[in-house]
Amino acid sequence: MTDHQNTFMRQALQAATEGAVRGEVPVGALIVDSEGNILACRHNQGILLKDPTAHAEMLAIREACQKIGYERLIDCTLYVTLEPCAMCATAISFARIKTLFYGALDSKGGGVEHGSKVYTHRTCHHKPEVQGGILAEECGKILQDFFKDLRKKRQDL
Amino acid sequence: MTDHQNTFMRQALQAATEGAVRGEVPVGALIVDSEGNILACRHNQGILLKDPTAHAEMLAIREACQKIGYERLIDCTLYVTLEPCAMCATAISFARIKTLFYGALDSKGGGVEHGSKVYTHRTCHHKPEVQGGILAEECGKILQDFFKDLRKKRQDL
Repeated sequence: MTDHQNTFMRQALQAATEGAVRGEVPVGALIVDSEGNILACRHNQGILLKDPTAHAEMLAIREACQKIGYERLIDCTLYVTLEPCAMCATAISFARIKTLFYGALDSKGGGVEHGSKVYTHRTCHHKPEVQGGILAEECGKILQDFFKDLRKKRQDL
Repeated sequence: MTDHQNTFMRQALQAATEGAVRGEVPVGALIVDSEGNILACRHNQGILLKDPTAHAEMLAIREACQKIGYERLIDCTLYVTLEPCAMCATAISFARIKTLFYGALDSKGGGVEHGSKVYTHRTCHHKPEVQGGILAEECGKILQDFFKDLRKKRQDL
């Protein structure tokens, strides 16, 4: 990873942290165009928006598309702190995102290296370049801390 | 299929037809609660909304969740004219939809019986009851006609 790429992932991590403060599972996603302009930076909002599709990646894709006025994000890069699920991985493909960088692996809910392995199928028409494990420790820790805290709160009830 | 179920799929087909008129790939989706109340009925709007995630199922799920004020559609049924893709199939799982009825099979883009086969993985935490092939011929024909017409228009240019 270049310093530039680490900087973008740190911004996605910052979004994840903001999500945790608001009670959302802390996952953050950021989309940049080919010139390095940030088109969108979002965190999960499934609970706040009462929307099961409101993962950070989905919100970022929708916002970035609105910004450029087109339903494809050609030559764009998506940074996300956690391995995307099958829903988000498929949306990334539909949006024609060129490169996907993600942080922590998600053996339970991931759809890139785990479960559905969305990009491995013949019927997947656009496969982004993928690199996982970026700042993986930090990206994973914020999630572990969040769920540890949640369990503690539930025990205290 | 009961008459009732056929009626709901016909309404989803009607939504698909409306989508075709507006230039969208004609797929329609409808969500009903356990008492048979229609919570949402939508067609694909990816082009109109400039949103690659705006499949009929996604829009219907989001609308139904807003209507009931909760991010889960427990005991609800989703009717869709085409086999859901991996994105929509995963969203259906996240929304905890109880039953999924779909029309035409989609060997190229489907994610239920084809490609990612989202519900077959150990990591899929909620698997709806699924029945495909409902009014399959009609659901498929509207798509075939749409793409045939599109190819003709392109040839005429």
